[in-house]
Formats: sequence, structure tokens, C-alpha cells
Amino acid sequence: MPQPRIIIVGAGFGGLAAAKALKNTPAEITLIDRTNHHLFQPLLYQVATAVLTPSQIATPIRSILRNQKNVTVILGEVTGVDKDQQRVFVTDADRENVPIAYDYLILATGATHSYFGHNEFETFAPGLKSLADAEAARNKILQAFELAEAEDDPARHRDLLTFILVGAGPTGVEMAGALAVLVRTSLKSEFRRIDPASARIVLVDMAPRVLGPFSEDLSKAAKARLEKLGVEVRLGHSVDQIDADGIMIAGERIASKTVIWTAGVAPSPAGKWLNVETDRAGRVRIQKDLTVPGHVEIFVVGDTASLDQNGKPLPGVAQVAMQQGRYAGKIIHNRIAGKPAPSPFSYFDKGSMAVVGKGFAVLQSGKVQLSGLGAWLTWAAVHLQFLATSSLRLTVFLQWIWTYLTGQRGDRLIVHQHAPPAPTPKRDTVTQSAVVGK
Amino acid sequence: MPQPRIIIVGAGFGGLAAAKALKNTPAEITLIDRTNHHLFQPLLYQVATAVLTPSQIATPIRSILRNQKNVTVILGEVTGVDKDQQRVFVTDADRENVPIAYDYLILATGATHSYFGHNEFETFAPGLKSLADAEAARNKILQAFELAEAEDDPARHRDLLTFILVGAGPTGVEMAGALAVLVRTSLKSEFRRIDPASARIVLVDMAPRVLGPFSEDLSKAAKARLEKLGVEVRLGHSVDQIDADGIMIAGERIASKTVIWTAGVAPSPAGKWLNVETDRAGRVRIQKDLTVPGHVEIFVVGDTASLDQNGKPLPGVAQVAMQQGRYAGKIIHNRIAGKPAPSPFSYFDKGSMAVVGKGFAVLQSGKVQLSGLGAWLTWAAVHLQFLATSSLRLTVFLQWIWTYLTGQRGDRLIVHQHAPPAPTPKRDTVTQSAVVGK
Repeated sequence: MPQPRIIIVGAGFGGLAAAKALKNTPAEITLIDRTNHHLFQPLLYQVATAVLTPSQIATPIRSILRNQKNVTVILGEVTGVDKDQQRVFVTDADRENVPIAYDYLILATGATHSYFGHNEFETFAPGLKSLADAEAARNKILQAFELAEAEDDPARHRDLLTFILVGAGPTGVEMAGALAVLVRTSLKSEFRRIDPASARIVLVDMAPRVLGPFSEDLSKAAKARLEKLGVEVRLGHSVDQIDADGIMIAGERIASKTVIWTAGVAPSPAGKWLNVETDRAGRVRIQKDLTVPGHVEIFVVGDTASLDQNGKPLPGVAQVAMQQGRYAGKIIHNRIAGKPAPSPFSYFDKGSMAVVGKGFAVLQSGKVQLSGLGAWLTWAAVHLQFLATSSLRLTVFLQWIWTYLTGQRGDRLIVHQHAPPAPTPKRDTVTQSAVVGK
Repeated sequence: MPQPRIIIVGAGFGGLAAAKALKNTPAEITLIDRTNHHLFQPLLYQVATAVLTPSQIATPIRSILRNQKNVTVILGEVTGVDKDQQRVFVTDADRENVPIAYDYLILATGATHSYFGHNEFETFAPGLKSLADAEAARNKILQAFELAEAEDDPARHRDLLTFILVGAGPTGVEMAGALAVLVRTSLKSEFRRIDPASARIVLVDMAPRVLGPFSEDLSKAAKARLEKLGVEVRLGHSVDQIDADGIMIAGERIASKTVIWTAGVAPSPAGKWLNVETDRAGRVRIQKDLTVPGHVEIFVVGDTASLDQNGKPLPGVAQVAMQQGRYAGKIIHNRIAGKPAPSPFSYFDKGSMAVVGKGFAVLQSGKVQLSGLGAWLTWAAVHLQFLATSSLRLTVFLQWIWTYLTGQRGDRLIVHQHAPPAPTPKRDTVTQSAVVGK
């Protein structure tokens, strides 16, 4: 009898956890991702601010699963799902919409940035979700200093050295802190016509406080720390306009050549592929066993799924994705093995952390609230532990110590790649892992 | 009295050596490069074959010169030289053809690949001169394995897994060896439908032997080693055609999706900018003091200069560039300091090396000829020593040991960057560091 075929779409935290949970399952598993690497997104801001090099936070998916012989890894972009015929469609550089059949499907296709209806902002304020995004942000930030140094006219230095981060959640706060440290330490003494430390870093959000999901006390501590680092924090106003020369906020123009979008997220189009009920944000409504109503063979996990627990929707964080991925793997394993289903999914929140600059973080876990060096050391230990391989743990650890002690960063290259050799599939703006099929 | 203004164009081995030789000179030095990094080109093939990550072989120029306060580093592309008014023209993302005046000019603008009149080959057989080139080659090579794995039809695997290197000089030989090791070690066990070790690696050259500049014995040793690694070496025939599906050589078609150009080099257009005598290859004819005839204030060094020694032209290698750069710096220093000129330039050849696969190199220095592990250890020690910073020396050293022992490579990411945010100046095919000015 042929083995059951399981397709997992997406090799982020959710998809990878699902694949690993199926390690001992007698099945043909196909893991499809549109990049060749598992990305450790929580450290993406450190690539964007030149601390780490891309290969320190991303690992080839097939390397991670090298020894799990029941998994085949495919580089391709899923373009749609045929629920009735139980097939997904995959496009790569060579072929379009190739159908692949499944008996079980796990969609772990994540989320991308949302411009809240202002897609025209994207050109001027790129987001930060993929390695390519992070490299583009790094190029842009470092290039701003280069253009200013090449400029004799000091009047233009100010615009070039103003950096705006739109969105004061964890990514915006961590970017702002890392940028503040960059300009005051790593770039020090390297320019002759400009003083990098004079750069203006502005963090804006329409919310009344930074780090919304954290307690008010920790928000205040984070804001105070940012201001100590010289970051201007502007809260309570939304951005009205973004163009090539800066932003408009609360009737004021802030001139800037470098605006980075660290605000909202939008789910992948998994809901459209499946043509099922979604929440207002577009995330697929799933049941307590993580399946789609009416389809016991289709699981949706992570940022692209919507599930309430204790009356509140689960947040779009790595921990939820990992726990859901593991659960989906386990429930499929049990079905194939003829075992009873595990008890319904329940998310266990281990807590949240965010770094602010150097040697300072905020941490919230249950009733525990911490800020300062202790929280930062905890943050560092936890993040090192979750990196995909032990060699990355070592190199990131050494890089952090090196950067902490010397201010020197790991990767400050500006490299504008050539255009890719093969045509890549078209994609719409809000697509993380796929294009809607025909 | 204002200090004399020295412009150095290019921060490769020649330009950087010149800047460093001017460390104690009372002058305003401007170093212009079109990238923000000094690239250690001899290890570029290790980025292309995924052993090293780009930041391990490239260092921001301004970091290297951080403590040399008389140097201002500018990111920009030189587009021309006005000899009479003593100015160069620089284009960057913001401004075009900005004139900068000099009292002394050092052109160290290097070389790029030459397609020997077949520029139409470039699309299908990209070269290997910049970090962007190396990342493009890496993307292409790794993607070929991904496409083959996604392909059910074994008939197509062969074309996808055939890699052709055109040019059997040091770069072609080193690439072929590194590819052979890649497919047999690092990629082992990671694919389910293909066997990476079955990949066909073909090294072609119209010359009768590999590594032309080395002795015949060392050529033979290198060829034997390549063949032991499974590389097909085809000599004595030029490539007649290259297209998207492979090459034609000696009337035979070799189907391949991945062809890399590791053959000829062409100098930068420095000769055109200056409108002076060049050799047949287009390199600027310079005098024994490295100046251009009739212009005691213009020096040309490295791959873009042509100088005979003992009746033979000096080769386009890093050592020549470094020694010439240092000499140009010294002669300018002496003139400014009112000291007598140093004795005419004389190149001291320390020898040449090339790696073939793992733990094997050939080495030729004066009458010494070595091949094998000893030559490889010497190669490793010398190359580590020449890296720009001590932290790179450490990380590259550790990476080599890690790769040697485990087969694991440092950077196997496929990342297709977004298009650069700012318009970059147009450039013609044979331009390493500049575009000819208006």
C-alpha cells in the first residue's frame, strides 16, 4: 500500500515544526517553500542593521532535514489549492502551476507586511519580512551615509541622515535601538564630512505607546531607553503620506531619504486558495484541531491561521506557529498510526521579549516583568537556543560578543545583486508565499 | 598653504596599498570606489561555491582606513578624467558627473571579464569579478540542484546537473575543484530524487593545458587532481557558442543550464578616459615610475596598467597591483616631502598558487615547485595573512576548518534581492570601475 502523502507549504517556524513532528511517520512528506532557507525572523533586524550576515540567521531547509529521509524539500511557490482533487499547484523558475497531490495538507504560509490600504507607500517604505527585505534595508541605510559623505553641502546632510521607522511594535523598537547604536558606535570615526552620531532616528506609531502587547510599565521603560539612545518617539498619530522625500505626520513634514515600514502584517492568501471563512484580517478560521471546517485533511497553522483561545485571538508570533505546527504533525501522525487524536490544541504562552539598543531588553512572561541587562541576557540565551544549528549558535554568539566589545559589525556590505537569471513568477503585494492560482 | 589633493580611483589591492603608503603624507586624499568594500578577489570562488559568506572576503573600505585621517572615502563611479583641468568626474545614486579636482591622480581601476568579442555570451555565461557576480553564480549553481530535485523526469536531471566552466586559469581550476567537492560532500544526503555526486563538471579551455602561467609539471598535477575529483577537462578547443541550453565546442553540443565564464580579462576604460597609448589589450602604457608619459601627476597601477619588465609584460595579479600601489604612494609622498624619488619600480615575484579541490594546491615560487597538501597549507596561510582584518582571518580560518572536517559550508542561501532602490549609472560591458564620461 502506498504511503500517505503529506504536503507542508512553508518552512517557517510552523512548517518546520510540523515536518519534524512527522519524523517517525510512515509517509511521503513534501515540504514546499519559495526560498531555500528557514529564516529566523526575530533576528532579521540585526541583518538590516548590519550586525549579522544573512547566513547567520538562515539555514538551507534541506540541510536541517538532511537526516529525515521521509521529507522531500521543494523550492517553489504555491499558486493555489484544489480542495476537491486534493492537489496544490507549484510554480518555479522552470515550470508553472505543476499539480502535486496530497492526502494531508498543512498550510504554514505566514504573513507579510500590510500597508493598511496604502500600497503606494511600499515603494518608499519597504517592509522587513524576508532576507531580501533585510538586505535592501541594509543597502539603503548604509548608502544614506555614503551619499551624505559624498555631499559637500551640509544642508543636504540632514535629510540623508534622517531615518524613520513606521510602527513601534517589537520590530520598529528593535530597529530603532539597533540604528541608534550603529550610528554612535560602529560608524564612529569612519567619516570625514559628516558625524554619523548626528543622525536623526524617528519612530512613529498611531498607537499611544510603544510595544503594544507588553505591559504599560515595560512600554514606558522601552520608550525611556529609546529616548536615552537619542531616538525621537512620536506616538498617537498615523502617517498621512510617504514619498521619496519623507513623511507627513500630524500636519508636519519630516524630510527623510530612508523610511522603513515596521507596522502591520497581512496573512498569506491561504484563505483565498481554500475559499473558506477568514477573520477580518484575512486569516483562515480554524477549529480546535487546527483543521479547516469540513476538511479534516487540511490544517492551517501560524500567522495565516485565526484561532481564539479564552475569547481572544492567538497572536501572530513564532511560538504559536511552532506549537501549532508540532500539533498538526502529531495529529496526522496519530491518524496514520491509528492512534486516538491528541486533546484539542492549547497554546502555552512562554512570554515575550524585545531588545532596546545594547544590553537592554524588556521581558514579560506570565506575571514576571523585567527590563534591563538581565532581560537582555535572557533574550540572548533564548534566541541563541532557537537558532537552527549549533554552528549558527556559535557564530552568532561570537559575533554578538565581538560587536558588544568593539562596536564592529559583521556585515556592512552594500551589494546590489544582478537581476535573477531566471524569470520569477509574478506576485501580488500582500503575498508571503504564493500567488493565487488560475 | 592648502595641502595637495590626491585622488585614488579604486580600492582594490592597488588603490588600497597606495592609500596606506600615504599614511603620513600631509595631503587631502580622496579614495573613490563604486562599491563600499575592499574585495579579496582571490577567494571570490569560495563565495560562488558557498564555502564563505560575502562579508568574510569583503570589508568596508572606510573601516579599513578608519584611523587614517587624511583619507576621505567616497562611494561613486568615476565616469571620466579631465587631464588638463586636473579633475575626475564622479556619479553616484544622487548626482551625475560631479567634478573633483586633484594635484595627483592614481588610477587603480582593475579589470573585468572579457568575452573576446562575444559579448552575447555574457547573458548565458556570467563572469566572476565582483561580489554581485559571485552571489549570482552561487544562486545559479544552487538553484540548478533545486530545479532538478523538483523535477520528476530523470531525463531532465542531466542537463540541470551539468556545470561548465569556460577558462582553465586559476579561477576556472579553483571553481571546478570547489564544485566537485561541493557535490560530493556538502550536498550529500540532502536530496531525495537526485544524487548531487552524479553532477557533471566540465572545464574547457582553448589552451593546451590548465593553469597556463604555471610550469608544465604543475599543470599536469593540477589536471590529474581535477580528473581524480571527477572533473572533465577539455583542452585545445575554443567554445563556439553559448546559449541558454549549453555550449558548442569542437562540433559537439554539451547541454547545460549553468555555464560560468572564467576566461579572459579586459582592463577598465582608464585608457579611454586619459586618451593615452594602450597595449593591445587596452591597458595604459606606463613608465618605470608608473606615470603616464607627459603627465608626472598621473599614475596608473595594477590590472589596468601595462609595464614590461625584463622584456615581458607584468601579469595582472594582486601582487603586482599591491607593489605598484605602494610605489605610487611612496613616490608621491617623496615629492610632497621634497625628498628624492625612489629608484624605478621593480616587481618582485613571490610566486603563484592555485587550489585544486580539498587539501591540494600547486605552488610555484622561483625554482620551488610544490603540489599537494603542503602547497595547500601554504596557500591557506598566505591567503589568511592577506585578509584585511584580524577578525576576518579568524572567521575564515574557523570556517575552513569547519568545512574541511564536516563538509558543511558557510553560506548556501539563494537570495534574489529586490531591485536597488536608487537608479544606478549605466555601464558598458567591459567596465570595472567606471563609465566613460561625456
